[in-house]
Amino acid sequence: MDLVLPSIAITLGDPGGIGPEVIAKALGDPSVRRLARWVVVGSRVVFQDACTRWAPGLELREDGDAVAWQSRPTDTSQVRVVDSGQFAAGSELLHTDSAAQGAASLAWVREAIEGARSGTYHGVVTGPISKHAWSLAGERRFAGHTELFADAFGCPAHAMMFVSPVVCVILATIHVPLASVPRLITTEGVLSTIRMGHAACERLGLHPDGLPARIAVCGLNPHAGEKGLMGSEDDAVIAPAIEAARREGIDASGPFPGDTIFQKAVRQHGREPRFDLVVAMYHDQGLGPLKLVAFDSAVNMTVGLPIVRTSPDHGTAFDIAGQGLADPGSMRRAMEMAARLSR
Amino acid sequence: MDLVLPSIAITLGDPGGIGPEVIAKALGDPSVRRLARWVVVGSRVVFQDACTRWAPGLELREDGDAVAWQSRPTDTSQVRVVDSGQFAAGSELLHTDSAAQGAASLAWVREAIEGARSGTYHGVVTGPISKHAWSLAGERRFAGHTELFADAFGCPAHAMMFVSPVVCVILATIHVPLASVPRLITTEGVLSTIRMGHAACERLGLHPDGLPARIAVCGLNPHAGEKGLMGSEDDAVIAPAIEAARREGIDASGPFPGDTIFQKAVRQHGREPRFDLVVAMYHDQGLGPLKLVAFDSAVNMTVGLPIVRTSPDHGTAFDIAGQGLADPGSMRRAMEMAARLSR
Repeated sequence: MDLVLPSIAITLGDPGGIGPEVIAKALGDPSVRRLARWVVVGSRVVFQDACTRWAPGLELREDGDAVAWQSRPTDTSQVRVVDSGQFAAGSELLHTDSAAQGAASLAWVREAIEGARSGTYHGVVTGPISKHAWSLAGERRFAGHTELFADAFGCPAHAMMFVSPVVCVILATIHVPLASVPRLITTEGVLSTIRMGHAACERLGLHPDGLPARIAVCGLNPHAGEKGLMGSEDDAVIAPAIEAARREGIDASGPFPGDTIFQKAVRQHGREPRFDLVVAMYHDQGLGPLKLVAFDSAVNMTVGLPIVRTSPDHGTAFDIAGQGLADPGSMRRAMEMAARLSR
Repeated sequence: MDLVLPSIAITLGDPGGIGPEVIAKALGDPSVRRLARWVVVGSRVVFQDACTRWAPGLELREDGDAVAWQSRPTDTSQVRVVDSGQFAAGSELLHTDSAAQGAASLAWVREAIEGARSGTYHGVVTGPISKHAWSLAGERRFAGHTELFADAFGCPAHAMMFVSPVVCVILATIHVPLASVPRLITTEGVLSTIRMGHAACERLGLHPDGLPARIAVCGLNPHAGEKGLMGSEDDAVIAPAIEAARREGIDASGPFPGDTIFQKAVRQHGREPRFDLVVAMYHDQGLGPLKLVAFDSAVNMTVGLPIVRTSPDHGTAFDIAGQGLADPGSMRRAMEMAARLSR
């Protein structure tokens, strides 16, 4: 059976964050473990400690070069670990930003990317990192995983999309200062985001009846500009992108006011949503509503890459790391989605 | 008893919107009617029609100059109407933007403001208007009620605040293009917003134990700038305003990432919030999350004015107007809050 399963890398994330814990907890469940050939890219000692504490069903086996965890005797699924020596035994583990931990988490992501480029991995699930720790380690070029993956694969047209059972959101701009957002919103860019969102919806089968996904596009300004009274980009820049998408057969509409459209795209209180995906123009416009109703259930995926890349929708949570309090739900869903999309 | 009740104007809003319906429905409830001496400022014929259809317990009485509605025989509370002739009998009622309706709804707001300035009214509750209809009627100076009231009372330091049982939000900027937001965010402006929010929380008694309200201040940029990696305003402009507020004894903290702070300020699923008020830097940052969890329950109030001004947290809803489908909950709460604050 192993031969048909995708091989998927899981980067450990910042060793001082909750990444190792949620990864161990998720892999402790045999139903998750069986979905793929999972390869944890990171510190063996940190992962081993996390497994001991939070995945007691998994036992360490060393068999030649392979270091693997598996539960005995009923389960044959294995979790392999690739440890390149970053953050070896004896390293001081801090539940805060540190240059050493930033350097390690960055190196593991780069290794996973190299493995994906060379065909070793069909997909990558990334554990949560601290961007500030990356910056302490000297990496200031990339605001996060998404930008690093896009650069490594040479994909200027990429986007961050969040998928949850409650609401799905894709962002037209991501980790940029708010002051830069208006000039980064172009007709071509919004159209590209709509197209990528549409393609991802098709792969994920997001419309409940198998029809083309219903995509709601936000405006940039309050009330989507209210017919030009509060900004011109909504009508001049965003509306033409929606029209172009519709001409391509995509079921896109808008621009809608960013403060009210989410009510129509959320599945809750027994209400069926009118939209399957919201295209938000910038970070907080999309993620404020999303995180309020889909916290710990959303999966972050990078669309527009030649490989599958997902991650949980939370950060390192240094404040609760090491205490066993972290909910592995989002990591588990990120792994399930990566396995499903990698087949 | 009438002598001690505040006198509060209710502007009818756009006659083609749901304003007349939700006002009639709210006033149809004697427990609301008894809270104040209510004066509807607007078209008598439109309000009469709304009462006939949606507040059948209210009967018209003409007694000399006074035109009043009341229920008989058990209830002595009255609703007076002041009709200056705008939108008289025979006017064509459209459930869409129109110059005539915009001119009427604007005139009614101006009349209510004049009455409040002269001491006739202690407060004003505004029915929903269409800003585009105002613009068709030639009024392009004001983006909405809030700006018109602030101008009429000469209050450059004012703010829009939303109060609901689930979450409370105040905005540092309101109806401006997103591109203008960064330069409008100043330390003095944010401090002023925090102060006004604090004062309103005190008047409303928002902290459950009667302590100073716990105020969370959002950053401007994604992740509140993530220590300068995505914009500098969070640390350079907003943080000093928070520090200054704390020196004044206000329990303010932040700047927090705008996409995650709302989870900690929302009362839902049995969780007690850690904050009583969120200060958002701009429209969609604050109102996207608010409207998702507090739709139809939030009251919009203008803080920083010498009079009380509240309104429901919804628009004209032309698409459902005239059908009896509108929920009067938010209007009712706006009236209750105006009565409470006007005493």
